[in-house]
Amino acid sequence: MSSIRDVAKKANVAACTVSRVLNGTANVSPETRMRIEQAMKELNYIPNELARGMFKQKAGIVAMLVPNIRHPYFSSLATYIEDELYKNGYKLMLCSTGDDIGREKEYLKILKSNIVDGVIMGVNNQKPEDYQEFGKPLVMLDYYVDDKIPLVVSDHCAGGRLAAEEFIRSGCKYVLHIGNEADTERVISYESHKALQEVLSEHGIRSRELDIKWNTFDFQGYLELAMLILEKYPEIDGIMAADMPACAFLKAAYKLGKKVPEELCIVSYDGTYVARTNVVEITTVHQSLKEIGKVSVDVMLKLLAGERLKENYVRVGVEIKKGETTK
Amino acid sequence: MSSIRDVAKKANVAACTVSRVLNGTANVSPETRMRIEQAMKELNYIPNELARGMFKQKAGIVAMLVPNIRHPYFSSLATYIEDELYKNGYKLMLCSTGDDIGREKEYLKILKSNIVDGVIMGVNNQKPEDYQEFGKPLVMLDYYVDDKIPLVVSDHCAGGRLAAEEFIRSGCKYVLHIGNEADTERVISYESHKALQEVLSEHGIRSRELDIKWNTFDFQGYLELAMLILEKYPEIDGIMAADMPACAFLKAAYKLGKKVPEELCIVSYDGTYVARTNVVEITTVHQSLKEIGKVSVDVMLKLLAGERLKENYVRVGVEIKKGETTK
Repeated sequence: MSSIRDVAKKANVAACTVSRVLNGTANVSPETRMRIEQAMKELNYIPNELARGMFKQKAGIVAMLVPNIRHPYFSSLATYIEDELYKNGYKLMLCSTGDDIGREKEYLKILKSNIVDGVIMGVNNQKPEDYQEFGKPLVMLDYYVDDKIPLVVSDHCAGGRLAAEEFIRSGCKYVLHIGNEADTERVISYESHKALQEVLSEHGIRSRELDIKWNTFDFQGYLELAMLILEKYPEIDGIMAADMPACAFLKAAYKLGKKVPEELCIVSYDGTYVARTNVVEITTVHQSLKEIGKVSVDVMLKLLAGERLKENYVRVGVEIKKGETTK
Repeated sequence: MSSIRDVAKKANVAACTVSRVLNGTANVSPETRMRIEQAMKELNYIPNELARGMFKQKAGIVAMLVPNIRHPYFSSLATYIEDELYKNGYKLMLCSTGDDIGREKEYLKILKSNIVDGVIMGVNNQKPEDYQEFGKPLVMLDYYVDDKIPLVVSDHCAGGRLAAEEFIRSGCKYVLHIGNEADTERVISYESHKALQEVLSEHGIRSRELDIKWNTFDFQGYLELAMLILEKYPEIDGIMAADMPACAFLKAAYKLGKKVPEELCIVSYDGTYVARTNVVEITTVHQSLKEIGKVSVDVMLKLLAGERLKENYVRVGVEIKKGETTK
């Protein structure tokens, strides 16, 4: 059986050029490519995993798993990650699990094969050991596995505090914050809720958390829920929620004739384009998705190059952008 | 050199089980998998493309190329396509080209390899022959290549007419419609502009098309442009634009104190969640992304199964959803 070196010799190119053509990463002239393909045919060469493995094998693809492609948070972040990867010679393969545990497992199984070089994880429904045993570079975005698997995440503690300070400034007395019912202690974004409650409580302000299944992505459902809450609990004068439910509360207030920010203050968490495209400028805790994307790819590239990371837990700063929905 | 059949014999399983384990599609017990892996080691078996090709080879992955993952139109459509594929045993690999010709070419090159079974094309920057020569099942979403490559697209002719009728009902005198400067005759969605102009012209209503580079996805830029246009051309009393620029015109009108719909009517085209999450209910021409997704996957599955298609050009119905931005 002929080897990659035989092909290279016959085509009069370096063996690594043949390898790169096989991996689809080569930037060779059409003539050279034809010569290589001709040589492969003549020698009856069969490319195989082992032959490829003789050279540094790189799929050139990094996968990103998200719970929902449609969610503006993940679709925006994916765009930044793709751009960063592309600048560094990698392509992005974006896969959505629909926040389903089984579907995430299936994807991880597929991605274990030779399709991709590493995975950036925007979902976290498996057990820690499933990530530990994955066997390829992983970067987690919002879930602490252990001190070995790198984590890149917004400083949600600061985010919760910034929101609390905005409610205090606005003179709110009772703040409702909408969380995700699936979150556990390992999910870092949950810290925003804890920090918010802490600061509000220190200032003697009432707060209450309501956990919903956010991934249903049903704006009409959010709107109905928001109408119900605002009607039933007129004493609520502050809302912290992700961009889309925050928009639902704003719309509900508008429909009920409740004045924003005079009677109800709203802080949306994330600051994606959904908050910005609204007629009313919404006050947001803004996560820098561009920076999260950049850092995640930096970390992934270091892992792929076998470099040591200086830190395994990178916190990216957040800021508050004041709009018309707080005083 | 040992074959897949030798491995199967040694592991005491069917050859197709070995093949399925190799392709990562098998649902076998850990014991069986271990036995197969053990047999491979002992026989020094090298899985290769040819051996895999002895059995029906299926990557189980369909790719979708989009110009921008972040765009709510494409991220929503991708979600529906992924769900449909998943129901049928396929995974989605979503790739974004950033609307860049070179990047689209690179992706097509990669996707020609064994990674995916077929591609659903949400971009169309190549020459027709590049799609004709792709060599794998293709479904186009908004671009006519030839009568052989299937096309699934909204009935944009009806969409343009519906918008025109809404402007006529609202008594508009001068309608500005925002298009995409990159569109050519082969891009079907362009028909909405032609149909709008035709119907308006029949009713003696002035209209003008302004083409912008929509993919920059810069809401602030849209907003500034909208402010400029509304200030400079106060006679404009009707706007048709994609959801995001439509939101920008709504916000600009609000900032300029221009009353909607009394002084300015807005019809947004697409009807994604960006239009729905706004405080003001926007009148939209609603494309059924769910239906486009379903039909695209149906067509793809038929192509993958080698079935003949009854029709190569499927038009999906659109409807107008009346909101508060028209009379």
